[in-house]
Amino acid sequence: MDREVVSLEDVFTPRGVAVVGVSKHRASFPSGVLQSLHSFEFPAVYPVNPKYEEVLGFPCYPDLVSIPGVVDHVVVAIPAERVLSLLDDCAEKKVRSVQFFTAGFGETGFSDRADLEQQMLQKARDGGFRIIGPNCTGIFVPSSRLVNGGGLPREPGPIAFISQSGGHAHTVPSDGGARGLRFSKVVSYGNALDVDESELISYLSRDPETEIISAYIEGVRDGRRFAAALRDAAKRKPVVIYKGGRTEAGKRAAFGHTASMTTSVDVFDALCRQAGVIQVENIEELIDALVMLQFAKPTPRGTGIALVGAGGGPSVLASDEIEQAGLELPELSDETKREMMAALPVDGSIFTNPIDTPNLATPEAISIVVDVLGRVPEIDVILYHLGFHPLSRWGSGRFASPAFLEPAIKAMTGVQEASGTPVLLVMRPPLDMEGLKEFIGARDAFVAAGLPVFHSLRDAATAVARVVKFSRLR
Amino acid sequence: MDREVVSLEDVFTPRGVAVVGVSKHRASFPSGVLQSLHSFEFPAVYPVNPKYEEVLGFPCYPDLVSIPGVVDHVVVAIPAERVLSLLDDCAEKKVRSVQFFTAGFGETGFSDRADLEQQMLQKARDGGFRIIGPNCTGIFVPSSRLVNGGGLPREPGPIAFISQSGGHAHTVPSDGGARGLRFSKVVSYGNALDVDESELISYLSRDPETEIISAYIEGVRDGRRFAAALRDAAKRKPVVIYKGGRTEAGKRAAFGHTASMTTSVDVFDALCRQAGVIQVENIEELIDALVMLQFAKPTPRGTGIALVGAGGGPSVLASDEIEQAGLELPELSDETKREMMAALPVDGSIFTNPIDTPNLATPEAISIVVDVLGRVPEIDVILYHLGFHPLSRWGSGRFASPAFLEPAIKAMTGVQEASGTPVLLVMRPPLDMEGLKEFIGARDAFVAAGLPVFHSLRDAATAVARVVKFSRLR
Repeated sequence: MDREVVSLEDVFTPRGVAVVGVSKHRASFPSGVLQSLHSFEFPAVYPVNPKYEEVLGFPCYPDLVSIPGVVDHVVVAIPAERVLSLLDDCAEKKVRSVQFFTAGFGETGFSDRADLEQQMLQKARDGGFRIIGPNCTGIFVPSSRLVNGGGLPREPGPIAFISQSGGHAHTVPSDGGARGLRFSKVVSYGNALDVDESELISYLSRDPETEIISAYIEGVRDGRRFAAALRDAAKRKPVVIYKGGRTEAGKRAAFGHTASMTTSVDVFDALCRQAGVIQVENIEELIDALVMLQFAKPTPRGTGIALVGAGGGPSVLASDEIEQAGLELPELSDETKREMMAALPVDGSIFTNPIDTPNLATPEAISIVVDVLGRVPEIDVILYHLGFHPLSRWGSGRFASPAFLEPAIKAMTGVQEASGTPVLLVMRPPLDMEGLKEFIGARDAFVAAGLPVFHSLRDAATAVARVVKFSRLR
Repeated sequence: MDREVVSLEDVFTPRGVAVVGVSKHRASFPSGVLQSLHSFEFPAVYPVNPKYEEVLGFPCYPDLVSIPGVVDHVVVAIPAERVLSLLDDCAEKKVRSVQFFTAGFGETGFSDRADLEQQMLQKARDGGFRIIGPNCTGIFVPSSRLVNGGGLPREPGPIAFISQSGGHAHTVPSDGGARGLRFSKVVSYGNALDVDESELISYLSRDPETEIISAYIEGVRDGRRFAAALRDAAKRKPVVIYKGGRTEAGKRAAFGHTASMTTSVDVFDALCRQAGVIQVENIEELIDALVMLQFAKPTPRGTGIALVGAGGGPSVLASDEIEQAGLELPELSDETKREMMAALPVDGSIFTNPIDTPNLATPEAISIVVDVLGRVPEIDVILYHLGFHPLSRWGSGRFASPAFLEPAIKAMTGVQEASGTPVLLVMRPPLDMEGLKEFIGARDAFVAAGLPVFHSLRDAATAVARVVKFSRLR
């Protein structure tokens, strides 16, 4: 039809949101959206369900058209059989966009359900509004206070993430948020019936709120359009992609999940290589790469790593992992070693690289070591282990105290400013309550100071290698 | 000399233990040993330090020979310069074994320190006692109440672990202990001056308390002896080895750590392959393989995996990871699918393999799914995700309640007994306090019921693949 297509910019800045199919069950998805919008202080939220007059304290409306205020965006969680008539209401209410949590369409493999999807698309075209999904958790835009779940970071930031999986679309901002990642837009787009990966990537490459683009993609709707969008985006901003469905079993699972006919992995990989896209192998690696890109500025130019404080056995593993990741542990000069030996205890210490001394978890030692290493030209990144050493594990209480944190943070951010050598913290999460409490306290303080935190040395080494390789390609 | 060599059996069953170089600082290694021996109710513990008359509530002795009772084993944490005269005291006191936390010997790269090691060895030979280490944390033998640190499982069990790293020698029984691993002997043997990996492996292959042998090895003292010991041990019991120092950087780190001249990796790998040894790439993988070996009995014979409950996106990743690990996700027959569809909600559900339905975290669904899958001949292992699903994460409170745990455990152990198909739980640890509390509650209940718990699907898939491959080779 002739109606103008609603832009993604309009989709991402709704004035009012309706949640259709909301229940009184707090743990359901639509109730979660309702509660999160409320706690993010989104100004105009309308639950819709003809069964209730009130839900979780909000007045509830029998249908969309009964809502008195403007509704730009609609969150839908009703059975698939009822979506067509809902879309008629959407047209009447003149909404801009509809996101469907509702599943049971093309991904079922049934042709009638695939046909239903096409009828939905036609209704959206006729009605002049956009569809996100179906089979998705929709949109999270902190700057618009638009949110689709609990535990997400409130402040906007430089990262956009688009995802065919609603689970991943929650994991990246929630787990990544705890490590300091901040987001411009997160979009779970499910079956990509209308808004798809190509349109999203094109939009984000020009979005002034977005500095870094990341994506979880199972299948590509239109290979040619996607390739053009990706190449153009990667010229403008760093792009990180995790491609799901790499094996035959993974491809079958991807079809059952979002009806994605996954592209040839070889073609996809070649496109990413040519475009200069950072590819990762799972969601944890995606978060790690984003932590590097958001925090380690400027991006380290070389692959020389100094590793500090892992203890003997872990240092051996770490050395193997660092070299296997394509990085190097440059040997230190006698002068550098002597500088450290003059200031630190020698017994039980190792001043080659990796560096290990029994008191490396004291602020004095941190200050000496990062200062010396920051001046070594062959060292591009300092990896500092905390809480690993047999003699100073999480739970000892020392790491979460201001007496440790303040001088340690000062030393680490200081060397980064003075020498441009970033300090990356490696902190393995402990699985006991006392240890985790201390871990969270220390992590939050480091993150607030702008320091990147990784959960294992292998994770940190992989992220550094990926980002350095990418920055060299550019 | 002509004195009889003390057997490892005698080393592992001391009647009295002296801790030399103990301080009043609770967080020091020797104080930790003292406190752990006390809390394990080891019958006769003697701190030694001429500076004190009392340490942490124990009467303290000025030297070894002043101790009134029998001392079979000595834990030493004094500077390297004073070890020779201490060894004279050990001979006079007629001890059986001495373990040196003290470091600063061959691993320093200084020839005088390497010479000192040789003098120590000669004194041990002359005095008729054994040396563990130096540069190690020594021995943990639950059945003897002999312990070398806090947070270790008290009950004896089938696993022996020997380690050139003191850090790993603590991590494996502490982290593994939380997942139900139980140990016969754990030995940190550091520089392997006297007691080395070959002697330990030979002993353990005949030790009736040990059913599974595992090792972290940086370097091998005597290749021919080691190969013979390893081949013989692997014929008798499953052997799991993590070899550190695989890259050039790792080899340098291993020399600095325990003076190990690491063997050619190719030779080492070939030996393990021929002997039927399970090789792993880090300590987490070693723990995972041990969990499989201790819990999944009988060892699964095939590579057919059923995966349940991961949610859409994670199921795609999981499918990729399972296939990349060398396992398969057999497609389910229409009859099997119909059986599940008759009992579980269809909307939003996926009944192919991986299987995903919105209510998979209820005991009713668990019971139906494991019962159906247990009867599928192509399924050798059931992997059950908990706490991953976007709609049922850790922290919701449901998983740690007896109303969930009791029927869920009954269903899982029931199918294992009825069909011989083991159920493996995959539970990703959450990093928030409320979530971790629930995670620990559920994990401890599953582990107590004899169910194996893994922290990620990739971890579980890797462990299953390694153990199945090994069991086929046998």
